Amino acid sequence: MTLKLKKIAETIQTGSKIAILPHTSPDGDCLGSSFALSLALKKLNKEPLVILEEDVPQLYSFLPGSDIKTMDVLSKGMFDMVICLDCGDERRLNNRIEIFNDCELTINIDHHISNTGFAQYNYIDTQSAATGEIIFDLLEELNVAIDKEMAENLYVAISTDTGGFKYSNTTSRTHIIVSALIQKNIGVAEINRRIYDTFSLDRLKLKAAAINLIEMHQHNKVAMIVLDYHLLQRMGMNMEDVDGLSGIPRSIEDVEVGVVFTEKEPGQVKVSFRSNQYVDVSKIAVSFGGGGHQRASGCTLNMDMDEAVKKVLAAVKDEVTQGAVKS
Amino acid sequence: MTLKLKKIAETIQTGSKIAILPHTSPDGDCLGSSFALSLALKKLNKEPLVILEEDVPQLYSFLPGSDIKTMDVLSKGMFDMVICLDCGDERRLNNRIEIFNDCELTINIDHHISNTGFAQYNYIDTQSAATGEIIFDLLEELNVAIDKEMAENLYVAISTDTGGFKYSNTTSRTHIIVSALIQKNIGVAEINRRIYDTFSLDRLKLKAAAINLIEMHQHNKVAMIVLDYHLLQRMGMNMEDVDGLSGIPRSIEDVEVGVVFTEKEPGQVKVSFRSNQYVDVSKIAVSFGGGGHQRASGCTLNMDMDEAVKKVLAAVKDEVTQGAVKS
Repeated sequence: MTLKLKKIAETIQTGSKIAILPHTSPDGDCLGSSFALSLALKKLNKEPLVILEEDVPQLYSFLPGSDIKTMDVLSKGMFDMVICLDCGDERRLNNRIEIFNDCELTINIDHHISNTGFAQYNYIDTQSAATGEIIFDLLEELNVAIDKEMAENLYVAISTDTGGFKYSNTTSRTHIIVSALIQKNIGVAEINRRIYDTFSLDRLKLKAAAINLIEMHQHNKVAMIVLDYHLLQRMGMNMEDVDGLSGIPRSIEDVEVGVVFTEKEPGQVKVSFRSNQYVDVSKIAVSFGGGGHQRASGCTLNMDMDEAVKKVLAAVKDEVTQGAVKS
Repeated sequence: MTLKLKKIAETIQTGSKIAILPHTSPDGDCLGSSFALSLALKKLNKEPLVILEEDVPQLYSFLPGSDIKTMDVLSKGMFDMVICLDCGDERRLNNRIEIFNDCELTINIDHHISNTGFAQYNYIDTQSAATGEIIFDLLEELNVAIDKEMAENLYVAISTDTGGFKYSNTTSRTHIIVSALIQKNIGVAEINRRIYDTFSLDRLKLKAAAINLIEMHQHNKVAMIVLDYHLLQRMGMNMEDVDGLSGIPRSIEDVEVGVVFTEKEPGQVKVSFRSNQYVDVSKIAVSFGGGGHQRASGCTLNMDMDEAVKKVLAAVKDEVTQGAVKS
């Protein structure tokens, strides 16, 4: 059942022992939203617990409330209410589905358009850039005054899901909310330094290595990086490291399409595509059995690297040529 | 004379042929502010001209109104009013001081605390994160409705002077203003991509080279990059390129002080210092005859590189040790 936020707030007021479940592989939005809500529920004399399967990622370990997450509590009937945050479907609860299924009253608060409405009570606002924006409104409905710690969490939630207020999902309202959060005297500079301007030396070295592998094609409209299996092994890169590199080729001036080839295993090549203005890279990815969006897509090819590069580059060149004519 | 913004607006209303002078080595704030004001004055049927000595930097060439800058107009008595924007003192007008001196009515609008109040009428608001914030208020006082083009200019002005809303000068009011600007349907994602996520391949390669030169000291609390004269020559780096590298060592996790040594000429070493949390690097720079702020400073040493590195590193280690005890 879809409820208005006011009704969601009234429902939450009836709860006492409340499990808060962010999605697996937690990011800044689901963590900041969860910790902010948990801190608020404590103010209302409830007993909230944020439950994760993983450790809080190092990047977000400074968030106030990040110490309250726990997994050693999984006894039956512990909670009278479950609130899922930023979680598009039940699969993103992973093993915590048991907690969800064990609970009579379930609430689902999210901003993803793909949300399946899997809970008893659902509030999905796809206009919000982040679930953190919804939690900001929810705390008002709950009559909880936002304190500095809640504000820091919501700031991180909203900032990370909007790429530091840079993505197209950033709205006028996003900045209105952030304006209110900053009034709580949060440490804007320090938070941003931690989130956006701190890297491990290894990660910087990987980036340097990737930059030195850039190849330009098609009159500098196409840039690519090829990371073959042996190179990845030698450099000790995992797939998470590689994901962080996918934006590099596109960031070169005049480039329209950036491609990163990664040989996860010999004969299996993952390809990520990024474009800037006129090439729909989802079309290219789909033609190779993958998918994605206009400006970011991917596919996996079961062939050796040379063949994958040759085929993909031909398809990219076609799209760039056609796109350039149209644009 | 210091005037209230309302009086500045009334004074501007009396002008007709108006020269707008941003500071030399123009940045996003002075350019965005100047173009926005120029576009607004045109709406008021005035004849504004933004006058620069340099070309508009490539980075900002997309700003609407960037075509209106000109230098081929320097005849006597051309203007009845000069407005200096984001310009702390007369020296930052450089050769354009002639236009300033030639004009009876001069106005100085700025947010730098160091502003000398050099014009006939001065409005200095040090609470504003950017001159763009002041221009936003000024356009209201002038009764000009902000259109999309003005909004794009002011967005860039405010974003660049706050490091993308990340620096400590970012206020609650900054976000309120940006919220209003975004309502004019500016292309948030595209503007941010152009400003923050576009690099020349050469610049990326320089960054990669710099990363590969990082040296760690003092239990990873100090990171440094040494760029000697021959290396700079070989890599074709100019000082502007090098300036862009000064933040890299500080961005490594656990590092407190980042230092970049640059040998501009044999025997002349420029040193930039950056710190994160507890070391006051202005003290170190001052001890070598330089200056700056707590978290960013610099000095120039007339000695060979080996000697400079040895002396500076010893001083940095002392400060890190003392700072670590205190913090």
